[in-house]
Amino acid sequence: MQKPEPPYWTVIFSSELAEEEGYGDMSQRMVEMAREQQGFLGVESARDPSGLGITVSYWRTREDIAAWGAVLEHRAAQDLGHRKWYRWYRLRIARIDEEREFGEQGGV
Amino acid sequence: MQKPEPPYWTVIFSSELAEEEGYGDMSQRMVEMAREQQGFLGVESARDPSGLGITVSYWRTREDIAAWGAVLEHRAAQDLGHRKWYRWYRLRIARIDEEREFGEQGGV
Repeated sequence: MQKPEPPYWTVIFSSELAEEEGYGDMSQRMVEMAREQQGFLGVESARDPSGLGITVSYWRTREDIAAWGAVLEHRAAQDLGHRKWYRWYRLRIARIDEEREFGEQGGV
Repeated sequence: MQKPEPPYWTVIFSSELAEEEGYGDMSQRMVEMAREQQGFLGVESARDPSGLGITVSYWRTREDIAAWGAVLEHRAAQDLGHRKWYRWYRLRIARIDEEREFGEQGGV
């Protein structure tokens, strides 16, 4: 994870899985794709044993998210099965105004 | 979870636990307190078996978050042990601009 100063942008994707088959591979592929997009800063992801998952990706600008969204939607159009995995999802785009931290974060 | 129209606000709290003892109780108490705050809209939370957790709470206004933050800091001042649980954390405050949804979300 890079350490940008606010303001920067985020996509908060929360979901519950209806089906796990193939999900891990797709999810990993999406993260790999995101990493190669312009403006990508990092991603944090957690999935509860209950099935609720939250993935938060961080981006330099709103336009970077729009460009990534265009890629997503293009993929979704090609992959009609993309909804097989989700019981529900919520995707929120937000501008980060303020940040506080404690300790050294590992990972991406 | 209520269904506000953007713009509304969020606190994204991501963390890794160093210690689990007492964490569940404290965490649940904090959610119960948040629910009683003015402007609270809902919360989503997931903790990965790896130990990474993400809690996203939603609020009507920035001022509602500031008021909740004042309560948090008050508590933290009283509870010098609050850092015993975290290896690291990141707290981000963001304004939600856009939302897309699929399916009916259960829970809060």
